Amino acid sequence: MGDVDRIQNAARKVIAKHKQGFQMVVVVSAMAGETNRLLALADAIDSRASARERDMLASAGEQVSIALMAIALQGMGQESISFTGPQVGIITDEVFGQARIKSIDDSRIRAELDKGKVVVVAGFQGLEPLSGDITTLGRGGSDTSGVALAAALGADECEIYTDVDGVFTADPNVVPGARKLDKISYDEMLELASMGAKVLHHRAVEFAKKYNVPLHVRCSFNDKPGTWVIEEVPEMERLLVSGVTSNTNEAKVSLLGVPDHPGVAAKVFETIAAKNILIDMIIQNVAADGLNDISFTVPKKALDDILDMQDELIRAVEAKEMVADKDIAKVSVIGVGMRSHCGVAAKMFSTLAAEEINIEMISTSEIKISCLIREEQAKLAVQRLCKAFDLVAEEA
Amino acid sequence: MGDVDRIQNAARKVIAKHKQGFQMVVVVSAMAGETNRLLALADAIDSRASARERDMLASAGEQVSIALMAIALQGMGQESISFTGPQVGIITDEVFGQARIKSIDDSRIRAELDKGKVVVVAGFQGLEPLSGDITTLGRGGSDTSGVALAAALGADECEIYTDVDGVFTADPNVVPGARKLDKISYDEMLELASMGAKVLHHRAVEFAKKYNVPLHVRCSFNDKPGTWVIEEVPEMERLLVSGVTSNTNEAKVSLLGVPDHPGVAAKVFETIAAKNILIDMIIQNVAADGLNDISFTVPKKALDDILDMQDELIRAVEAKEMVADKDIAKVSVIGVGMRSHCGVAAKMFSTLAAEEINIEMISTSEIKISCLIREEQAKLAVQRLCKAFDLVAEEA
Repeated sequence: MGDVDRIQNAARKVIAKHKQGFQMVVVVSAMAGETNRLLALADAIDSRASARERDMLASAGEQVSIALMAIALQGMGQESISFTGPQVGIITDEVFGQARIKSIDDSRIRAELDKGKVVVVAGFQGLEPLSGDITTLGRGGSDTSGVALAAALGADECEIYTDVDGVFTADPNVVPGARKLDKISYDEMLELASMGAKVLHHRAVEFAKKYNVPLHVRCSFNDKPGTWVIEEVPEMERLLVSGVTSNTNEAKVSLLGVPDHPGVAAKVFETIAAKNILIDMIIQNVAADGLNDISFTVPKKALDDILDMQDELIRAVEAKEMVADKDIAKVSVIGVGMRSHCGVAAKMFSTLAAEEINIEMISTSEIKISCLIREEQAKLAVQRLCKAFDLVAEEA
Repeated sequence: MGDVDRIQNAARKVIAKHKQGFQMVVVVSAMAGETNRLLALADAIDSRASARERDMLASAGEQVSIALMAIALQGMGQESISFTGPQVGIITDEVFGQARIKSIDDSRIRAELDKGKVVVVAGFQGLEPLSGDITTLGRGGSDTSGVALAAALGADECEIYTDVDGVFTADPNVVPGARKLDKISYDEMLELASMGAKVLHHRAVEFAKKYNVPLHVRCSFNDKPGTWVIEEVPEMERLLVSGVTSNTNEAKVSLLGVPDHPGVAAKVFETIAAKNILIDMIIQNVAADGLNDISFTVPKKALDDILDMQDELIRAVEAKEMVADKDIAKVSVIGVGMRSHCGVAAKMFSTLAAEEINIEMISTSEIKISCLIREEQAKLAVQRLCKAFDLVAEEA
C-alpha cells in the first residue's frame, strides 16, 4: 500500500464490496517503503539488532496503516475499527522475524462485523502469548495474515491486492508477452511462489490450500478480474507448464571433501536449522575418492550467518573446505501438467543447453523442475523457456 | 528525542547511570516530528478522524523509539528490552487522546530489571483494559508516563531530559537573562507548567507531587545539573516570585446577555465538559441590566468544537450571543512566596498598566496570578514582569 491516495483508493474498493452485502475484514501491510525505512534506522544504530526489537520496530509500520485505513473508511461514512495483530489474538510461535501463526481468536472480529463495521487488521504481525511479545511473520507476512484470517472466519474468498493484474506465466518485466492466468491450482501457485514469483508468498498459499480458501489475486489500480488460486480442476491440465520463474535471492554453499559417514548431511542441516535459516536446494555427490561434496542454497541474507558458522560446519562433518557463491539464479518451470507428461525435464535441459547455459544443480518435485545457473544468464533462460513451453502471447 | 545520534547519545547516558549501580527504566517519546508526521497523514485523509484511530496511529511513533533505544543499548553491550505501554500494563481510562493513567502493573518490569536489563518503555500510551484499545495521554504524555512509572516502581528519582538546561524563571527566548532555578516546589512547577512553560507537563508534575517523586529536569546535550522539582522546603521561600510565563494557546469565549438564573454557569460548563474540553479561566460579570456576561478560555484547538456547540450553548443559558477571540495571551506570575507577601497582585497590575497593557480577565490561586491580555503584548509583559520581580540575571 502506498500513500494517502492509495489508501483512499483501497477504501473505496472495500466500501463498494461491502455495499454488495459482504462482511469485510481488510488486512493491510505497511505503506510502501515504510518497513525498509524503519529497519534502516535499526541498521544505522546496530546492524546486528536483536530479532525481538526488530519485530517491535517493524510492526509499528502496519499499525500506522490500519489506523489510516480505518480513518479513510470512516471519512467515507463507513463504520470501521482497526486492530493490531495482538489485539485480535493472532497467536504465533516465538520465532521473531519469521513467526508462524498457530491460532486466531475470531471473537472480537466477529463481534465488530456483526455491528456492521468493516474490520481493519494489521497484517504481518502476531503475538507470542507467553511473553506477550509482538512477532512478525517475515516477507509476505501480510498475505499470510489475510489468508489465515479468511480461514479462521470461514470467509467466502480472500482477495489479495497487488500492483499487477494477477499471476503471470512469467515475470512480464523479463518476458514481454507473458500471459495472465485466469486460474491456477494451489500446488502450482505454491511452486511459483516458492520459486520467486513475488505476487504471493508461499506461506499464504500453503494456508489457503490447507483450509481451502479461494484466493483472488488482483490489481489495486483497476477492477479487472485477476487470477483465482483454487483447488485443482480438470480444465487446468491442458497447460503442460503454467509458469517459469527465476529467483536470484539465493546463494550456493558447498562443503567439499566430506568423508562418507552416515548422518553427515543431518549434522549439517540440523546445525543450520537451529539458526532458523531456510535451506532450499540440496545435492550431495559422491566423488571417486569416497569423499562427498554437499551443496545447498540459502537466502542471500542468511549467507553471513552461514559464513559465521563456517568453522563449526567444517568441523562437524570433517570437510576439507567450504565455498560460497552469490552469483547464482534458480530457474524453474512449474505445472500440474507435468504429472501426466514425460519429457518436460528433457525439454527444459535441452532449451538451456541450446543457449550454452550450464546447469549447476537440479531439483525436482511432482510439478516443478528447478535448475541452478549463473545469475547473468537468468533472464535469457526464462525468455527461452517461456518460448519453448508456449507461455507467451502470440503478438510477443 | 531526535535522530539516530540523539538515541545513541541518550543510550550512553543511560549506560553511564546504570554503571553507577542504578536499576534503570527508560521512558521514551516519539522521535522529533514523528507524532506530527503521523497525525498529518491522518489529517490528509480526514481531519475529523476518530480519536480511537488517532491514538492507534500516534502510538506507533513511540513503538519505533523504544525498539531503536533497546537496539542502541544492546549495540553498546547493555542488555535491554523494550515494552509498549499496553505490554507493561499501563492501564488508563477510555478518553482517547487525553487518557489518564489509572494503574500500572510493575511485575513485568521488575522481573526484567532483576535480570540486570535496562527496561525501555513507550511513553504517552496506555491500554483501556475492557476494550483492549490503545490510548494516548495527550501532550506531554511521555513525561507523565515516566513519572507514573517512577511512582509505581518507587524509584529514587525521575530524570526528565529536555532540550534546555532546566526550569527557568521565564522563557529565555523571550527574556534574555532569565535565570535557571536549582530547585522549585511541585506547586510552583505545577503552576508554571499549567501556564505554558513547556519544559514539563502539568500532569507529570501532579503525579510527582502526589507520589512525592523527586524530578530532575535536565538537558539531553550536556551533563550539567538541571532543576530539581521537589517538595517545598523553607529555603525556597526567599523568592517572592519564581517564574513568569505566557501562554498563547488559549482562546477566549464569551456568552453575552445571559439572564441571571441559578445554575446557568453549571449548564454551560457541564455541556462543555461532556465533550472533554478543558476550561481554564472563568469569569462572570453581572451587568447593570441584570444580564450576565460569562467568559472562559479553552485550548485554541478546541475552539472549533465550541463553535459547533454555539447554538446549543446559547439555547441552554438563553444568551443573546456568543463571541470568540483567538488573539489573546495569558501572562502569569508564580511563586510560593506569594503566600506570605501581600502586594504581588498590585505590583503585577501596575507593571502592566505602566506599559498601557489592558487586562481582560484575571484569575488567581494561592501561588499564582494570571492576566489575560492582547496576544501581541505578551512578550513585552513577560519582560517587564521579570524585571519588576528581579528574575533576570545582573548582566542582562
